[in-house]
Amino acid sequence: MKIAVLGTGTVGQALAGRLSELGHDVVTGTRDPQATLARTEPDGMGTLPYAAWATEHPQVTLATFADAVVGADVVVNATGGAAAVPALQAAGAEALAGKVVLDISNPLDFSQGFPPTLFVKDTDSLGEQIQREFPQARVVKSLNTLTAELMVRPASLGAESSVFLSGDDQDAKAVVAELLESFGHTDVIDLGDISTARGTEMLLPVWLRLMGALGTGMFNFKIVR
Amino acid sequence: MKIAVLGTGTVGQALAGRLSELGHDVVTGTRDPQATLARTEPDGMGTLPYAAWATEHPQVTLATFADAVVGADVVVNATGGAAAVPALQAAGAEALAGKVVLDISNPLDFSQGFPPTLFVKDTDSLGEQIQREFPQARVVKSLNTLTAELMVRPASLGAESSVFLSGDDQDAKAVVAELLESFGHTDVIDLGDISTARGTEMLLPVWLRLMGALGTGMFNFKIVR
Repeated sequence: MKIAVLGTGTVGQALAGRLSELGHDVVTGTRDPQATLARTEPDGMGTLPYAAWATEHPQVTLATFADAVVGADVVVNATGGAAAVPALQAAGAEALAGKVVLDISNPLDFSQGFPPTLFVKDTDSLGEQIQREFPQARVVKSLNTLTAELMVRPASLGAESSVFLSGDDQDAKAVVAELLESFGHTDVIDLGDISTARGTEMLLPVWLRLMGALGTGMFNFKIVR
Repeated sequence: MKIAVLGTGTVGQALAGRLSELGHDVVTGTRDPQATLARTEPDGMGTLPYAAWATEHPQVTLATFADAVVGADVVVNATGGAAAVPALQAAGAEALAGKVVLDISNPLDFSQGFPPTLFVKDTDSLGEQIQREFPQARVVKSLNTLTAELMVRPASLGAESSVFLSGDDQDAKAVVAELLESFGHTDVIDLGDISTARGTEMLLPVWLRLMGALGTGMFNFKIVR
Protein backbone atom coordinates (compact mmCIF):
# COMPACT_ATOMS: atom_id res chain seq x y z
CA MET A 1 0.00 0.00 0.00
CA LYS A 2 0.95 3.64 -0.29
CA ILE A 3 1.08 5.04 3.23
CA ALA A 4 1.59 8.64 4.40
CA VAL A 5 3.02 8.98 7.90
CA LEU A 6 2.45 12.50 9.25
CA GLY A 7 5.05 13.40 11.87
CA THR A 8 8.80 12.82 11.87
CA GLY A 9 9.47 12.27 15.59
CA THR A 10 9.78 9.03 17.55
CA VAL A 11 6.39 7.66 16.56
CA GLY A 12 6.61 8.77 12.93
CA GLN A 13 10.07 7.23 12.53
CA ALA A 14 8.97 3.95 14.13
CA LEU A 15 5.89 3.63 11.94
CA ALA A 16 7.54 4.78 8.71
CA GLY A 17 10.53 2.50 9.22
CA ARG A 18 8.48 -0.59 10.02
CA LEU A 19 5.93 -0.02 7.23
CA SER A 20 8.74 0.46 4.73
CA GLU A 21 10.47 -2.69 5.98
CA LEU A 22 7.20 -4.57 5.40
CA GLY A 23 7.23 -3.48 1.76
CA HIS A 24 4.86 -0.52 1.77
CA ASP A 25 5.50 2.63 -0.23
CA VAL A 26 6.00 5.18 2.56
CA VAL A 27 6.11 8.97 2.47
CA THR A 28 6.61 10.94 5.68
CA GLY A 29 4.87 14.28 6.00
CA THR A 30 6.05 17.36 7.85
CA ARG A 31 5.13 21.04 7.98
CA ASP A 32 8.39 22.27 6.46
CA PRO A 33 10.65 19.59 4.93
CA GLN A 34 13.67 21.92 4.72
CA ALA A 35 13.39 22.77 8.44
CA THR A 36 12.95 19.08 9.32
CA LEU A 37 16.08 18.13 7.33
CA ALA A 38 18.06 21.02 8.79
CA ARG A 39 17.80 19.71 12.36
CA THR A 40 21.01 18.03 13.48
CA GLU A 41 20.40 17.42 17.20
CA PRO A 42 18.35 14.66 18.84
CA ASP A 43 15.06 15.97 20.25
CA GLY A 44 14.15 16.07 23.95
CA MET A 45 13.20 12.38 23.85
CA GLY A 46 16.56 11.36 22.34
CA THR A 47 15.02 10.68 18.94
CA LEU A 48 17.44 10.84 15.99
CA PRO A 49 17.26 14.02 13.91
CA TYR A 50 15.18 13.10 10.88
CA ALA A 51 18.03 13.62 8.40
CA ALA A 52 20.16 11.02 10.19
CA TRP A 53 17.25 8.59 10.32
CA ALA A 54 16.49 9.23 6.64
CA THR A 55 19.98 8.23 5.53
CA GLU A 56 19.30 4.80 7.06
CA HIS A 57 15.90 4.64 5.33
CA PRO A 58 16.58 5.90 1.79
CA GLN A 59 13.40 4.32 0.44
CA VAL A 60 11.23 6.63 2.61
CA THR A 61 10.66 10.05 1.07
CA LEU A 62 9.88 13.29 2.90
CA ALA A 63 7.22 15.76 1.76
CA THR A 64 4.89 18.45 3.05
CA PHE A 65 1.73 17.24 4.79
CA ALA A 66 -0.26 18.09 1.65
CA ASP A 67 2.09 16.33 -0.77
CA ALA A 68 2.51 13.28 1.48
CA VAL A 69 -1.16 12.29 1.45
CA VAL A 70 -1.63 12.50 -2.34
CA GLY A 71 -2.56 9.03 -3.54
CA ALA A 72 -2.13 7.47 -0.09
CA ASP A 73 -4.28 4.45 0.81
CA VAL A 74 -3.72 5.02 4.52
CA VAL A 75 -2.73 8.17 6.41
CA VAL A 76 -1.05 7.69 9.79
CA ASN A 77 -1.29 10.63 12.20
CA ALA A 78 1.91 10.33 14.22
CA THR A 79 2.11 13.98 15.27
CA GLY A 80 1.94 15.18 18.86
CA GLY A 81 -1.61 15.69 20.15
CA ALA A 82 -1.74 19.47 19.93
CA ALA A 83 -0.34 19.36 16.38
CA ALA A 84 -2.76 16.72 15.11
CA VAL A 85 -5.64 18.83 13.78
CA PRO A 86 -3.38 21.51 12.24
CA ALA A 87 -1.30 18.82 10.50
CA LEU A 88 -4.40 17.16 9.09
CA GLN A 89 -5.79 20.56 8.03
CA ALA A 90 -2.52 21.20 6.20
CA ALA A 91 -2.94 17.82 4.49
CA GLY A 92 -6.39 19.01 3.44
CA ALA A 93 -9.91 17.81 4.20
CA GLU A 94 -10.57 17.01 0.54
CA ALA A 95 -7.43 14.92 0.25
CA LEU A 96 -8.43 12.98 3.38
CA ALA A 97 -12.01 12.30 2.23
CA GLY A 98 -12.61 8.55 2.04
CA LYS A 99 -9.14 7.70 3.34
CA VAL A 100 -8.31 5.53 6.32
CA VAL A 101 -6.70 7.80 8.95
CA LEU A 102 -4.93 5.87 11.69
CA ASP A 103 -4.69 8.33 14.58
CA ILE A 104 -1.99 7.50 17.15
CA SER A 105 -1.84 10.89 18.87
CA ASN A 106 -2.64 11.60 22.53
CA PRO A 107 -4.07 14.87 23.89
CA LEU A 108 -1.16 15.51 26.25
CA ASP A 109 -0.78 18.97 27.76
CA PHE A 110 2.74 19.58 29.11
CA SER A 111 2.09 23.26 29.86
CA GLN A 112 2.01 22.60 33.63
CA GLY A 113 5.05 20.29 33.56
CA PHE A 114 5.28 16.56 34.21
CA PRO A 115 3.16 14.52 34.42
CA PRO A 116 1.12 16.06 31.61
CA THR A 117 -2.65 16.40 31.83
CA LEU A 118 -5.11 15.78 28.98
CA PHE A 119 -6.49 18.74 26.99
CA VAL A 120 -9.61 16.75 26.10
CA LYS A 121 -11.06 13.81 28.06
CA ASP A 122 -14.00 11.93 29.51
CA THR A 123 -16.85 13.61 27.57
CA ASP A 124 -14.90 13.93 24.31
CA SER A 125 -11.61 12.74 22.83
CA LEU A 126 -8.99 13.82 20.33
CA GLY A 127 -10.07 10.93 18.09
CA GLU A 128 -13.62 12.31 18.03
CA GLN A 129 -12.38 15.86 17.46
CA ILE A 130 -10.45 14.67 14.40
CA GLN A 131 -13.43 12.68 13.10
CA ARG A 132 -15.72 15.73 13.52
CA GLU A 133 -13.19 18.05 11.83
CA PHE A 134 -12.81 15.63 8.88
CA PRO A 135 -16.22 13.96 8.62
CA GLN A 136 -15.37 12.23 5.34
CA ALA A 137 -12.14 10.71 6.63
CA ARG A 138 -12.41 7.17 8.09
CA VAL A 139 -10.70 7.73 11.43
CA VAL A 140 -9.40 4.78 13.45
CA LYS A 141 -7.77 5.39 16.81
CA SER A 142 -5.17 2.80 17.75
CA LEU A 143 -1.61 2.25 19.02
CA ASN A 144 -1.79 5.31 21.32
CA THR A 145 -1.46 3.09 24.41
CA LEU A 146 2.12 1.84 24.09
CA THR A 147 5.62 3.08 23.35
CA ALA A 148 6.69 3.54 19.72
CA GLU A 149 9.07 0.59 19.57
CA LEU A 150 6.36 -1.78 20.85
CA MET A 151 3.73 -0.34 18.49
CA VAL A 152 5.64 -1.83 15.59
CA ARG A 153 7.49 -4.74 17.24
CA PRO A 154 5.23 -6.06 20.04
CA ALA A 155 6.86 -9.48 19.96
CA SER A 156 9.96 -7.98 21.56
CA LEU A 157 8.10 -8.06 24.91
CA GLY A 158 8.23 -11.86 24.84
CA ALA A 159 4.58 -12.30 25.87
CA GLU A 160 1.30 -11.40 24.21
CA SER A 161 -0.17 -7.98 24.94
CA SER A 162 -3.22 -6.09 23.63
CA VAL A 163 -3.98 -3.15 21.36
CA PHE A 164 -7.32 -1.46 20.78
CA LEU A 165 -9.36 -0.15 17.85
CA SER A 166 -11.90 2.71 18.01
CA GLY A 167 -13.71 3.93 14.92
CA ASP A 168 -17.02 4.32 13.18
CA ASP A 169 -16.04 2.53 9.94
CA GLN A 170 -15.72 -1.27 10.14
CA ASP A 171 -13.83 -1.57 6.85
CA ALA A 172 -11.32 1.04 7.96
CA LYS A 173 -10.84 -0.84 11.24
CA ALA A 174 -10.25 -4.03 9.27
CA VAL A 175 -7.51 -2.30 7.23
CA VAL A 176 -5.84 -1.07 10.41
CA ALA A 177 -6.21 -4.48 12.12
CA GLU A 178 -4.37 -6.08 9.21
CA LEU A 179 -1.51 -3.58 9.52
CA LEU A 180 -1.34 -4.23 13.28
CA GLU A 181 -1.20 -7.97 12.70
CA SER A 182 1.59 -7.47 10.18
CA PHE A 183 3.55 -5.72 12.96
CA GLY A 184 3.07 -8.80 15.16
CA HIS A 185 0.02 -7.85 17.22
CA THR A 186 -2.01 -10.96 18.02
CA ASP A 187 -4.64 -9.50 20.39
CA VAL A 188 -6.41 -6.62 18.64
CA ILE A 189 -9.59 -5.61 20.51
CA ASP A 190 -12.29 -3.64 18.71
CA LEU A 191 -13.81 -1.42 21.41
CA GLY A 192 -16.50 0.07 19.17
CA ASP A 193 -17.14 3.49 17.68
CA ILE A 194 -14.78 6.47 17.78
CA SER A 195 -16.15 7.64 21.16
CA THR A 196 -14.38 4.65 22.73
CA ALA A 197 -11.15 6.57 22.07
CA ARG A 198 -12.01 8.41 25.31
CA GLY A 199 -11.12 5.23 27.13
CA THR A 200 -7.80 4.57 25.43
CA GLU A 201 -6.69 8.21 25.58
CA MET A 202 -7.46 8.20 29.31
CA LEU A 203 -5.04 5.28 29.72
CA LEU A 204 -2.17 7.73 29.32
CA PRO A 205 -2.09 8.94 32.94
CA VAL A 206 -1.66 5.41 34.32
CA TRP A 207 0.76 4.59 31.49
CA LEU A 208 2.94 7.55 32.52
CA ARG A 209 2.83 6.53 36.21
CA LEU A 210 3.70 2.96 35.28
CA MET A 211 6.67 4.21 33.27
CA GLY A 212 7.80 6.02 36.43
CA ALA A 213 7.26 3.02 38.69
CA LEU A 214 8.82 0.46 36.34
CA GLY A 215 11.64 2.71 35.12
CA THR A 216 10.94 1.88 31.48
CA GLY A 217 8.39 2.46 28.73
CA MET A 218 8.89 -1.09 27.44
CA PHE A 219 5.65 -2.53 28.79
CA ASN A 220 2.11 -2.91 27.53
CA PHE A 221 -1.39 -3.69 28.73
CA LYS A 222 -2.70 -7.21 28.19
CA ILE A 223 -6.40 -7.77 28.72
CA VAL A 224 -6.49 -11.13 30.52
CA ARG A 225 -9.86 -12.88 30.12
CA MET B 1 -7.02 -8.56 61.83
CA LYS B 2 -10.16 -6.66 62.65
CA ILE B 3 -11.44 -5.17 59.39
CA ALA B 4 -14.34 -2.79 58.78
CA VAL B 5 -15.84 -2.94 55.28
CA LEU B 6 -17.91 0.17 54.56
CA GLY B 7 -20.58 -0.53 51.94
CA THR B 8 -22.91 -3.53 51.62
CA GLY B 9 -23.26 -3.77 47.81
CA THR B 10 -21.41 -5.99 45.35
CA VAL B 11 -17.93 -4.81 46.33
CA GLY B 12 -18.63 -4.75 50.06
CA GLN B 13 -20.07 -8.28 50.00
CA ALA B 14 -17.13 -9.62 47.98
CA LEU B 15 -14.52 -8.07 50.29
CA ALA B 16 -16.31 -8.91 53.54
CA GLY B 17 -16.96 -12.50 52.49
CA ARG B 18 -13.41 -13.16 51.34
CA LEU B 19 -11.76 -11.46 54.33
CA SER B 20 -13.98 -13.44 56.70
CA GLU B 21 -13.18 -16.67 54.84
CA LEU B 22 -9.47 -15.87 55.33
CA GLY B 23 -10.01 -15.68 59.09
CA HIS B 24 -10.30 -11.97 59.71
CA ASP B 25 -12.79 -10.47 62.14
CA VAL B 26 -15.07 -8.55 59.75
CA VAL B 27 -17.73 -5.93 60.43
CA THR B 28 -19.65 -4.36 57.55
CA GLY B 29 -20.68 -0.73 57.88
CA THR B 30 -23.75 0.96 56.46
CA ARG B 31 -25.59 4.23 56.99
CA ASP B 32 -28.71 2.63 58.47
CA PRO B 33 -28.45 -1.07 59.41
CA GLN B 34 -32.23 -1.49 59.78
CA ALA B 35 -32.83 -0.12 56.28
CA THR B 36 -30.06 -2.31 54.84
CA LEU B 37 -31.54 -5.42 56.45
CA ALA B 38 -35.06 -4.50 55.33
CA ARG B 39 -34.20 -4.68 51.62
CA THR B 40 -35.46 -7.90 50.04
CA GLU B 41 -34.84 -7.31 46.31
CA PRO B 42 -31.55 -7.62 44.41
CA ASP B 43 -30.15 -4.21 43.47
CA GLY B 44 -29.78 -2.90 39.90
CA MET B 45 -26.56 -4.90 39.48
CA GLY B 46 -28.19 -8.16 40.56
CA THR B 47 -26.41 -8.15 43.90
CA LEU B 48 -28.10 -10.15 46.66
CA PRO B 49 -30.01 -8.13 49.24
CA TYR B 50 -27.69 -7.84 52.21
CA ALA B 51 -29.97 -9.81 54.55
CA ALA B 52 -29.86 -12.84 52.23
CA TRP B 53 -26.08 -12.56 51.91
CA ALA B 54 -25.75 -12.18 55.70
CA THR B 55 -27.54 -15.45 56.40
CA GLU B 56 -24.78 -17.19 54.40
CA HIS B 57 -22.09 -15.25 56.30
CA PRO B 58 -23.22 -15.38 59.94
CA GLN B 59 -19.75 -14.56 61.23
CA VAL B 60 -19.88 -11.09 59.60
CA THR B 61 -21.69 -8.50 61.69
CA LEU B 62 -23.45 -5.35 60.45
CA ALA B 63 -23.14 -1.96 62.13
CA THR B 64 -23.36 1.75 61.45
CA PHE B 65 -20.33 3.31 59.74
CA ALA B 66 -19.29 4.79 63.11
CA ASP B 67 -19.64 1.54 65.05
CA ALA B 68 -18.00 -0.56 62.33
CA VAL B 69 -14.67 1.24 62.43
CA VAL B 70 -14.22 1.10 66.23
CA GLY B 71 -11.10 -0.92 66.91
CA ALA B 72 -10.56 -1.79 63.25
CA ASP B 73 -6.99 -2.32 62.04
CA VAL B 74 -8.01 -1.71 58.43
CA VAL B 75 -11.01 0.16 57.00
CA VAL B 76 -12.10 -0.80 53.48
CA ASN B 77 -14.08 1.85 51.59
CA ALA B 78 -16.35 -0.21 49.34
CA THR B 79 -19.04 2.42 48.86
CA GLY B 80 -19.97 3.97 45.53
CA GLY B 81 -17.81 6.95 44.55
CA ALA B 82 -20.29 9.71 45.39
CA ALA B 83 -21.00 8.10 48.78
CA ALA B 84 -17.36 7.66 49.78
CA VAL B 85 -16.62 10.93 51.60
CA PRO B 86 -20.01 11.05 53.40
CA ALA B 87 -19.57 7.44 54.55
CA LEU B 88 -16.10 8.13 55.90
CA GLN B 89 -17.33 11.34 57.55
CA ALA B 90 -20.03 9.28 59.25
CA ALA B 91 -17.32 6.88 60.41
CA GLY B 92 -15.55 9.91 61.85
CA ALA B 93 -12.22 11.57 61.16
CA GLU B 94 -10.95 10.88 64.69
CA ALA B 95 -11.82 7.21 64.43
CA LEU B 96 -9.94 6.99 61.11
CA ALA B 97 -6.81 8.78 62.36
CA GLY B 98 -3.81 6.49 62.00
CA LYS B 99 -5.83 3.71 60.37
CA VAL B 100 -5.13 2.07 57.02
CA VAL B 101 -8.01 3.02 54.70
CA LEU B 102 -8.15 0.87 51.58
CA ASP B 103 -10.19 2.92 49.09
CA ILE B 104 -11.76 0.89 46.27
CA SER B 105 -14.29 3.49 45.11
CA ASN B 106 -14.43 5.10 41.67
CA PRO B 107 -15.71 8.63 40.92
CA LEU B 108 -18.41 7.49 38.51
CA ASP B 109 -21.14 9.94 37.56
CA PHE B 110 -24.20 8.18 36.10
CA SER B 111 -26.29 11.37 35.97
CA GLN B 112 -26.02 11.55 32.18
CA GLY B 113 -26.66 7.82 31.67
CA PHE B 114 -24.32 5.10 30.45
CA PRO B 115 -21.39 5.12 30.04
CA PRO B 116 -20.77 7.18 33.18
CA THR B 117 -18.28 10.03 33.25
CA LEU B 118 -15.89 10.81 36.13
CA PHE B 119 -16.78 13.53 38.63
CA VAL B 120 -13.10 14.11 39.41
CA LYS B 121 -10.17 13.32 37.10
CA ASP B 122 -6.84 14.23 35.56
CA THR B 123 -5.77 17.06 37.92
CA ASP B 124 -7.20 15.43 41.06
CA SER B 125 -8.70 12.10 42.11
CA LEU B 126 -11.18 10.67 44.59
CA GLY B 127 -8.29 9.01 46.40
CA GLU B 128 -6.64 12.40 46.90
CA GLN B 129 -9.93 14.00 47.97
CA ILE B 130 -10.32 11.34 50.65
CA GLN B 131 -6.71 11.74 51.81
CA ARG B 132 -7.16 15.54 52.02
CA GLU B 133 -10.47 15.22 53.89
CA PHE B 134 -8.92 12.76 56.38
CA PRO B 135 -5.28 13.84 56.59
CA GLN B 136 -4.51 11.51 59.49
CA ALA B 137 -5.90 8.42 57.77
CA ARG B 138 -3.40 6.32 55.81
CA VAL B 139 -5.23 6.09 52.50
CA VAL B 140 -4.27 3.42 49.96
CA LYS B 141 -6.09 3.28 46.63
CA SER B 142 -6.27 -0.19 45.14
CA LEU B 143 -8.59 -2.81 43.59
CA ASN B 144 -10.67 -0.15 41.81
CA THR B 145 -9.60 -1.45 38.39
CA LEU B 146 -11.33 -4.84 38.27
CA THR B 147 -14.67 -6.47 38.98
CA ALA B 148 -15.54 -7.44 42.56
CA GLU B 149 -15.24 -11.21 42.09
CA LEU B 150 -11.72 -10.84 40.63
CA MET B 151 -10.65 -8.38 43.33
CA VAL B 152 -10.84 -11.23 45.84
CA ARG B 153 -10.30 -14.31 43.63
CA PRO B 154 -7.93 -13.23 40.81
CA ALA B 155 -6.78 -16.81 40.25
CA SER B 156 -10.17 -17.61 38.71
CA LEU B 157 -8.97 -15.86 35.51
CA GLY B 158 -6.47 -18.66 34.96
CA ALA B 159 -3.57 -16.32 34.11
CA GLU B 160 -1.71 -13.70 36.10
CA SER B 161 -3.00 -10.14 36.02
CA SER B 162 -2.00 -6.93 37.81
CA VAL B 163 -3.31 -4.67 40.56
CA PHE B 164 -2.00 -1.27 41.63
CA LEU B 165 -1.22 0.59 44.84
CA SER B 166 -1.35 4.38 45.29
CA GLY B 167 -0.66 5.98 48.64
CA ASP B 168 1.60 8.25 50.64
CA ASP B 169 2.31 5.79 53.49
CA GLN B 170 4.67 2.91 52.67
CA ASP B 171 3.70 0.88 55.74
CA ALA B 172 0.01 1.20 54.89
CA LYS B 173 0.75 0.05 51.33
CA ALA B 174 2.62 -2.94 52.74
CA VAL B 175 -0.42 -3.90 54.85
CA VAL B 176 -2.68 -3.66 51.81
CA ALA B 177 -0.21 -5.55 49.60
CA GLU B 178 -0.25 -8.42 52.10
CA LEU B 179 -4.06 -8.55 52.00
CA LEU B 180 -3.98 -8.53 48.18
CA GLU B 181 -1.49 -11.38 48.16
CA SER B 182 -3.70 -13.34 50.54
CA PHE B 183 -6.49 -12.99 47.95
CA GLY B 184 -4.19 -14.50 45.32
CA HIS B 185 -2.74 -11.42 43.64
CA THR B 186 0.80 -12.11 42.48
CA ASP B 187 1.57 -8.90 40.55
CA VAL B 188 1.00 -5.91 42.85
CA ILE B 189 2.51 -2.74 41.36
CA ASP B 190 3.24 0.24 43.63
CA LEU B 191 2.65 3.28 41.42
CA GLY B 192 3.74 5.82 44.03
CA ASP B 193 1.96 8.46 46.07
CA ILE B 194 -1.80 8.98 46.30
CA SER B 195 -1.80 11.29 43.25
CA THR B 196 -1.15 8.20 41.11
CA ALA B 197 -4.78 7.26 41.86
CA ARG B 198 -5.62 9.69 39.02
CA GLY B 199 -4.21 7.11 36.66
CA THR B 200 -6.06 4.09 38.01
CA GLU B 201 -9.37 5.95 38.38
CA MET B 202 -9.02 7.07 34.75
CA LEU B 203 -8.83 3.40 33.74
CA LEU B 204 -12.57 3.11 34.33
CA PRO B 205 -13.68 4.50 30.95
CA VAL B 206 -11.67 1.91 29.01
CA TRP B 207 -12.70 -0.77 31.51
CA LEU B 208 -16.37 0.00 30.83
CA ARG B 209 -15.84 -0.05 27.06
CA LEU B 210 -13.96 -3.33 27.34
CA MET B 211 -16.86 -4.81 29.31
CA GLY B 212 -19.12 -3.78 26.43
CA ALA B 213 -16.81 -5.19 23.75
CA LEU B 214 -16.04 -8.45 25.57
CA GLY B 215 -19.55 -8.97 26.95
CA THR B 216 -18.25 -9.67 30.45
CA GLY B 217 -16.61 -7.96 33.40
CA MET B 218 -14.47 -11.02 34.06
CA PHE B 219 -11.20 -9.61 32.72
CA ASN B 220 -8.29 -7.67 34.12
CA PHE B 221 -5.29 -5.64 33.04
CA LYS B 222 -1.90 -7.35 33.10
CA ILE B 223 1.14 -5.13 32.72
CA VAL B 224 3.38 -7.18 30.42
CA ARG B 225 7.03 -6.17 30.76
